Amino acid sequence: MEVEFKALLDDLDVLEKSLSDPAPIHKLRSHVENLATLSKCNPHRRSKVKELSSEVVDSNPYSRLMALQRMGIVENYERIREFSVAIVGIGGVGSVAAEMLTRCGIGRLLLYDYDTVELANMNRLFFRPDQVGMTKTDAAVQTLAEINPDVVLESFTMNITTVQGFETFTSSLTNKSFCPSKEGSGVDLVLSCVDNYEARMAVNQACNELRQTWMESGVSEDAVSGHIQLLVPGETACFACAPPLVVASGIDERTLKREGVCAASLPTTMGVVAGLLVQNSLKFLLNFGEVSPYLGYNSLKDFFPTMKMRPNPQCSNVACLERQKEYMLAKPERDAAAKAKMEADASIAIDEGPLHDDNEWNISVVDDENEKDATKAASSSDTLPEGLTRELPDADEYEKEIAIASGSGETEEEDDLEDLKKQLEALNAA
Amino acid sequence: MEVEFKALLDDLDVLEKSLSDPAPIHKLRSHVENLATLSKCNPHRRSKVKELSSEVVDSNPYSRLMALQRMGIVENYERIREFSVAIVGIGGVGSVAAEMLTRCGIGRLLLYDYDTVELANMNRLFFRPDQVGMTKTDAAVQTLAEINPDVVLESFTMNITTVQGFETFTSSLTNKSFCPSKEGSGVDLVLSCVDNYEARMAVNQACNELRQTWMESGVSEDAVSGHIQLLVPGETACFACAPPLVVASGIDERTLKREGVCAASLPTTMGVVAGLLVQNSLKFLLNFGEVSPYLGYNSLKDFFPTMKMRPNPQCSNVACLERQKEYMLAKPERDAAAKAKMEADASIAIDEGPLHDDNEWNISVVDDENEKDATKAASSSDTLPEGLTRELPDADEYEKEIAIASGSGETEEEDDLEDLKKQLEALNAA
Repeated sequence: MEVEFKALLDDLDVLEKSLSDPAPIHKLRSHVENLATLSKCNPHRRSKVKELSSEVVDSNPYSRLMALQRMGIVENYERIREFSVAIVGIGGVGSVAAEMLTRCGIGRLLLYDYDTVELANMNRLFFRPDQVGMTKTDAAVQTLAEINPDVVLESFTMNITTVQGFETFTSSLTNKSFCPSKEGSGVDLVLSCVDNYEARMAVNQACNELRQTWMESGVSEDAVSGHIQLLVPGETACFACAPPLVVASGIDERTLKREGVCAASLPTTMGVVAGLLVQNSLKFLLNFGEVSPYLGYNSLKDFFPTMKMRPNPQCSNVACLERQKEYMLAKPERDAAAKAKMEADASIAIDEGPLHDDNEWNISVVDDENEKDATKAASSSDTLPEGLTRELPDADEYEKEIAIASGSGETEEEDDLEDLKKQLEALNAA
Repeated sequence: MEVEFKALLDDLDVLEKSLSDPAPIHKLRSHVENLATLSKCNPHRRSKVKELSSEVVDSNPYSRLMALQRMGIVENYERIREFSVAIVGIGGVGSVAAEMLTRCGIGRLLLYDYDTVELANMNRLFFRPDQVGMTKTDAAVQTLAEINPDVVLESFTMNITTVQGFETFTSSLTNKSFCPSKEGSGVDLVLSCVDNYEARMAVNQACNELRQTWMESGVSEDAVSGHIQLLVPGETACFACAPPLVVASGIDERTLKREGVCAASLPTTMGVVAGLLVQNSLKFLLNFGEVSPYLGYNSLKDFFPTMKMRPNPQCSNVACLERQKEYMLAKPERDAAAKAKMEADASIAIDEGPLHDDNEWNISVVDDENEKDATKAASSSDTLPEGLTRELPDADEYEKEIAIASGSGETEEEDDLEDLKKQLEALNAA
């Protein structure tokens, strides 16, 4: 439109020179200038910020996030700007996950999808009817850049299950130009938000090869259940180690989507799964709370099963077997590090112990210097502002009881392959 | 802008008449018309639809929702267009709840808020930086109308805790013009998505007076936990029956938000709570799954406590006591209806019994006429398309074990007031 306005004003200049009375042209010009201003009017497109501020003013887009530090939930929220997250599949779950990370001020997002926006996608959050026909990656970049210009967005409009696509995928994950000093591959986490087995296997292959931690997510075809899962190559089961809990049995899954058959979907289930996925990602990246190894969501019953899956020593994926071997070989090192940490923590605890052991009011005195550490170490219920009490009961007590009573409870026992198989069979049979 | 373009074209007409050579004016006019078209350009604003179609084409915004019927999850999805839902508080939870219901094609939404959009709200989903300065109700109507023009949107920019505001609130809830034939008040459900005790008590008062079922939601000040709760006047505890689990103790809650202190918030926690709230609303309205009486979300542990709260016979709210009395008086009627339903279900079960009792393959034969009922009555795992197996284990088995082991489990026992008090004390002490 700017070009058009420029041409219009030039024409008016020419016309003005040919007229004896320039007054009507002046009037026209003021109309046109007015319109040009109106067309650009976007009064509050927000500008980039250099540093995250914790100042509590209405104009600070990060005040409510930096408050996580003041409340003792996260030790260093600003680190979020150093992280790169790759999201594969920008559909009902991936798009919402991308928006959540963007609003949290993540450093860099890599987005992968080959699909276009359709009206049939409007029953999930994120895409708008005016974006119909755009590629999902382009539409996502358009929306996300407007929401938070501080996030570096890179989009890849391609299918990662093709040979060429897979190559571009792995090379984009290993590009370290965003944060060259960091260890590991070029990204901190890969989120799989795809809707088919083939794409999940491609993500699994790439992450096993690159020693890349990733999280898987999924929503059932009937729209009422879903799950998220953490996969650490060599340490947890990879996607090929155990059969997925939803499988196309004796049928090519591609035929399931043909002939007027379409999966149901709901913005609620997909929004919840995206929320649980990004919450788990934030806990993983910013080091707070407990990262869930697997979390299911059965919306009909509001039932949320958890479990841990160890790698399968007979996994069909060669890269997975290599990672398992590496993980086993590094065991003495891990044990030594864990022991050293425990001893260090114990000595800190002694240093910071209360002056009086018998202390009716549970008051403890700590050095100012150590206060920050103490806040972090203390249960977060101690860090609420004066006048507030915590809403939910302590989960520890309940979890212990549940873990004992229920086979699905998270346990610290060493499960061997037979146990794992039995668990999966029981789950599939139920 | 349309008015401006009209004025510009009129001026050109006047100028044309005063000139001997109209050619430059023709050129100008074509420029202006071009610009007017560009300014209106919105190629895919979607038009309204008359009926929800289940046709599987990319251009059908309801295909994935109508698939819930085909998959046996919801018996009649189209009924969603008859429902009115009121959302009080269009913040981090309320705005996302409104968007989810809008994308689901809810009949009518009533939105209440008095606040304006700020950059400090950008760490939650929904509002955009270009909406800063607008009232939250206006910004929400702008966004929602574009997403789904089929939804009737009514917004109220006001504070329901003032005398005038409360009056407008209750009278808007009782306006039955949208669906005059329906029983009850003018809305089917009220969702409370406010962030303070005073506003919750106002919603509670209105709903107790109007016999209005509502759902409450909340997110903790440290952003990492939340809850939803179903409140049916007379049948469940009202908001005044039991102390809330987060309270300002010995301090005016308004002072908590002063002097540069602000609550933390996360798009993840708020998105999950909104998702759980709207999922519970859909289950309630469309009659599928189990409606949760209370569901907590502790994100640090991914722990989701549930419980049931019965009304307090010593409740301070007079309207609540009246509803309790009505509920008690209607008990014989309810028991008779439940008995009649059980007998009817049993006779259907006998009619539809398998021809051969001893049936190795679990094959049953039903009349075509009764097929629809049978599908509904059957466990939904029977209704998945061929080739798919269910992702999550049956929750029933786990729930039973959990309910036995854990005090927080949902139980069917009659809890008296003493039990309730003890439970709450235990929860607050934890």
